[in-house]
Amino acid sequence: MKIIDNPYELRKELKNKEVGFVPTMGALHEGHLSLIKKARNENKIVVVSIFVNPTQFLEGEDLDKYPKRLEADVKICELAGVDYIFAPNIENMYNDSDEILIKAPKVRGYILEGHFRPGHFDGVLQIVLKLFNIVKPKKAYFGKKDAQQLSLIKQMVKNLFLDIEIIEGETIREKTGLALSSRNVYLSSEEKKRALSISKSLKLAAKLSLKEKNCNKLKKEMMKVLDIDKLQYIAFVDREFNYIHEIEEKNSIILIAGFVGNTRLIDNIYL
Amino acid sequence: MKIIDNPYELRKELKNKEVGFVPTMGALHEGHLSLIKKARNENKIVVVSIFVNPTQFLEGEDLDKYPKRLEADVKICELAGVDYIFAPNIENMYNDSDEILIKAPKVRGYILEGHFRPGHFDGVLQIVLKLFNIVKPKKAYFGKKDAQQLSLIKQMVKNLFLDIEIIEGETIREKTGLALSSRNVYLSSEEKKRALSISKSLKLAAKLSLKEKNCNKLKKEMMKVLDIDKLQYIAFVDREFNYIHEIEEKNSIILIAGFVGNTRLIDNIYL
Repeated sequence: MKIIDNPYELRKELKNKEVGFVPTMGALHEGHLSLIKKARNENKIVVVSIFVNPTQFLEGEDLDKYPKRLEADVKICELAGVDYIFAPNIENMYNDSDEILIKAPKVRGYILEGHFRPGHFDGVLQIVLKLFNIVKPKKAYFGKKDAQQLSLIKQMVKNLFLDIEIIEGETIREKTGLALSSRNVYLSSEEKKRALSISKSLKLAAKLSLKEKNCNKLKKEMMKVLDIDKLQYIAFVDREFNYIHEIEEKNSIILIAGFVGNTRLIDNIYL
Repeated sequence: MKIIDNPYELRKELKNKEVGFVPTMGALHEGHLSLIKKARNENKIVVVSIFVNPTQFLEGEDLDKYPKRLEADVKICELAGVDYIFAPNIENMYNDSDEILIKAPKVRGYILEGHFRPGHFDGVLQIVLKLFNIVKPKKAYFGKKDAQQLSLIKQMVKNLFLDIEIIEGETIREKTGLALSSRNVYLSSEEKKRALSISKSLKLAAKLSLKEKNCNKLKKEMMKVLDIDKLQYIAFVDREFNYIHEIEEKNSIILIAGFVGNTRLIDNIYL
């Protein structure tokens, strides 16, 4: 396994190779690992990028304290059979003080996560596009945990005619149901317990949705279960992130975002 | 020669081929032809796109009356040995009502042309990026006539890590000095005469700049020669489109934009 920080050097290494690519911000957990394993199964060459992208963090968010554990990450990648880790620094990725920017779609990029984190997806799409252009993967792997991000990246592939197949990975959970997240390390054990109410409410809604298709009614039942400090949204959308009022068979996603203590958590369930 | 309108069909055709690419809005003239010839000399496969891109026209500009002459363009390409014409329609290129957008750099994308045509370069970069992703050229050809566009496209290649070499073509002029432009057809013969004062003033400044390095003084001399109806700007920049006050040897561009009658013309000279 090679660790490379220079985009042009990586591009040279990967020239004419069929690459499976897993972009990450590091602090790898079983969720990332499941994507890496999938990539390992499906591609000759596997590249994992580790880059905490500043442009997708808003003022006052946790950019500075976002967990960094490069050594552990390298070990995890090595054990998983990764061929290249791309770990650039900020100057490698942002080479201009007056850059060309990517704007997320006006509606679907500025609702839900985009509403509570305005500009977040601009930064996500910008860095993912840069990474795609450097790595030129055949397949790229993203988790369903970040459902809106996944949807927007698929849209970017379509809108910009990228020749890349986007592969979705299932959300990985603790036995308790808590969705894995690098941000879970911020949670105290008491907070972690209450955080479980998020996945519980989603599971409940999924079960009820077999009979009850009305989203407002489902939302009310979810509210009864939820025990978090500040709910930002419970939302019902189709796979392309249009709001829905009635559950559509095999085309609906229920999403939650909110704070437990000072930690912002998101989760969702694909129906 | 094949004419293709479907992006995915074109991509299939070009798979694993070394392509030289000349993007145009059609109404081809000797300026385009010089780029096509250059591409023909330097590449196995030459692709010319013909697409009048709506997103780079502002409200009230000449989108509707922009000259369209596909038959003549096809003939010109055929004679020049072009392999593929890509002539998509709007729906081929814009497949979403809520698209991901490209924003030109805040400073260099919104001065000069970007000041008088705000948002123009957003549209230019958006369509060029889409075309690049479809055609995946090794080399792409742009004329120096659109100097700021050329500079921004080179910046996009750098910022977004595109693996494409941008080749510059010299501005082609009538014997009189008038820079070729698809918009010249709008000019009456009287207007055409006065339009010559643009290239004359540029040539004068180039000559004077051998001794006089002060841009303000050069500008004053240019103003004496210019005989157009509305001057929008005379500007002095370096090759990366930073404003300059003193001419820098082999790194300066003088630019002019203005109206002759109702026709907006631009021209420039690289020193």
